[in-house]
Amino acid sequence: MAKIRVGINGYGTIGKRIADAVLKMPDMELIGVIKITPDYGAYIASMKGIPIYTIRDRLDAFKSRGFKVEGVLEDLLEDIDVLVDATPAGYGMKYLDSIYRRFMEEKGLKVVFQGGEKPEVAKKSFNAYCNAAEAYGAESLRVVSCNTTGLLRTICVLDKAFGVERVRATIVRRAADPKEDRRGPVNSIKLNPPKIPSHHAIDVKTVVPGIDVETAAVVVPTTLMHVHSVYMVLHREVSIDDIVEELSRWNRIMLIDAESTGIDSTAKLIEASRDLGRPRYDIPELIVWRDTIMARGRELWFIQAVHQESIVVPENMDAIRAVAKTDGYPEKSIELTDKILGLGRIFKLG
Amino acid sequence: MAKIRVGINGYGTIGKRIADAVLKMPDMELIGVIKITPDYGAYIASMKGIPIYTIRDRLDAFKSRGFKVEGVLEDLLEDIDVLVDATPAGYGMKYLDSIYRRFMEEKGLKVVFQGGEKPEVAKKSFNAYCNAAEAYGAESLRVVSCNTTGLLRTICVLDKAFGVERVRATIVRRAADPKEDRRGPVNSIKLNPPKIPSHHAIDVKTVVPGIDVETAAVVVPTTLMHVHSVYMVLHREVSIDDIVEELSRWNRIMLIDAESTGIDSTAKLIEASRDLGRPRYDIPELIVWRDTIMARGRELWFIQAVHQESIVVPENMDAIRAVAKTDGYPEKSIELTDKILGLGRIFKLG
Repeated sequence: MAKIRVGINGYGTIGKRIADAVLKMPDMELIGVIKITPDYGAYIASMKGIPIYTIRDRLDAFKSRGFKVEGVLEDLLEDIDVLVDATPAGYGMKYLDSIYRRFMEEKGLKVVFQGGEKPEVAKKSFNAYCNAAEAYGAESLRVVSCNTTGLLRTICVLDKAFGVERVRATIVRRAADPKEDRRGPVNSIKLNPPKIPSHHAIDVKTVVPGIDVETAAVVVPTTLMHVHSVYMVLHREVSIDDIVEELSRWNRIMLIDAESTGIDSTAKLIEASRDLGRPRYDIPELIVWRDTIMARGRELWFIQAVHQESIVVPENMDAIRAVAKTDGYPEKSIELTDKILGLGRIFKLG
Repeated sequence: MAKIRVGINGYGTIGKRIADAVLKMPDMELIGVIKITPDYGAYIASMKGIPIYTIRDRLDAFKSRGFKVEGVLEDLLEDIDVLVDATPAGYGMKYLDSIYRRFMEEKGLKVVFQGGEKPEVAKKSFNAYCNAAEAYGAESLRVVSCNTTGLLRTICVLDKAFGVERVRATIVRRAADPKEDRRGPVNSIKLNPPKIPSHHAIDVKTVVPGIDVETAAVVVPTTLMHVHSVYMVLHREVSIDDIVEELSRWNRIMLIDAESTGIDSTAKLIEASRDLGRPRYDIPELIVWRDTIMARGRELWFIQAVHQESIVVPENMDAIRAVAKTDGYPEKSIELTDKILGLGRIFKLG
């Protein structure tokens, strides 16, 4: 079967990780990435042999700095089956209206958007553990954002196994990504937003509208990962063992025992990932601390951590295959993504 | 009526604030504070005219640095009605066994301990909005710690008004006090502890054993205040207006409207306190963001902030009067404390 010809618009935090993952996937071919600025990221893409495209009025800027440019956005769109839009939040909608839609209608282009876009940008919002089957053959999908993806993984797995009556989660957000040296707060806990529910719950419901989920969120001065305190009421009584057994079945959820491993913080999680030689120290798995699980009657409570830069990468691989209608989707897609990215293989300690 | 003669053992973060508050109270006299080291804090105490006492083997150290010392701990205990122990966590118990107990039995000394001590240190753990009346005449009391005091204020007020069925609160702790330049984390979210429930719930139950409270806690890199996401199920349905009306009645709980004031973080709360000229920018009131209140059926959810350095100061004033058995306690004590410390007078904005 022919490989899926993939293009990526944007080569920032998410785009460059999706590019690396696409390069690894045996059933995909990375035709090119769109860069707007001939900066450090363009050097990295060149070094990796990734074809660079740009937009028309930036051609000279790239050429004057000695970069080889394969063409413009429209040229790339002619040559691919699936575009992954990884532009800054809100730009996907603009590109959809100005350019993508024409290629979707005339050439059958499929597009995968990211969670920074409004839900209306795509036919469906997507999470592999929640609604992968329903996404098959969609003209466009939206992979929800990092916090939403993290919440959905445990919510959907636990809902299928035990039934979720309601979720009340408190999100402790990282202030900035490691490279973002302009963002804060530096010494504050900031309500984000100053109301309950926060938008995260609303985003979760774009994927699982039937589940009663609400969230509260604060931002804190750290760059490594988000942390969620997830309180749920289930439809039936569960034990800690029930929860451990169920969560252990899923490669994209990693149970960590804080006591036996000594890993009781986001800093130590990242240090372990560095020690294990993971690319960029990424942790696409949702981390759940096993020691924190409190099960009492139908109540369930635990703490989980989300690596904001990489958690959506596996979901993007599956979304690409959903819109490309690959054989055996979704099971084979999820299996292949996990295998190639090595998910679920580390941290199985304690 | 004679003033209550008060001594304070320890002049650190809590001790120095209690000293300042005692100096202001019209019905109390500060006989002296115990200092162990002739450091910067001793200069400040001297400047304020507070009599300094020490322990026997530190007398020379103080004299060699030119400090006037009134005597040793035992001398102070002879001259006072109530000792407030504000020594580092765990030292209170040691002092109780080695020295205080003798003065309690032989001289009728009363002692107020802080929340860093185990509950067994005192006859009763204390919060002014929960069990002030029962504390009257106790030989010793323990003012619970900052997070516990913050939780208890809203829990007890709401329990009296509406009945609290259960509380599930997530605590986002500040990493260090502003002066503590050795503590972290600097860039991490750390589970504290890596289990649910955290010790805070256990501490809350030392004051209100009948209420079903559990807590989860993480530490984050900030120094200013703690923040709590407080989720409750009440015995009856409430509206947001019910909650606002009830919480507004209490001087030690301050409702802030984030939207109209622009105060949506701990940094902005502290900035407002600095602008208002509050001593050391202290905020002894528990802050509740009005915009965050979510009331749905019997569910209630809101975000509150605790100024860890000062929230227990008013409670210490009332605890002193409880053990000293003042007239009209507890109502007159709480009223006088609030009036003299100016509680509930600022931030009534929006």
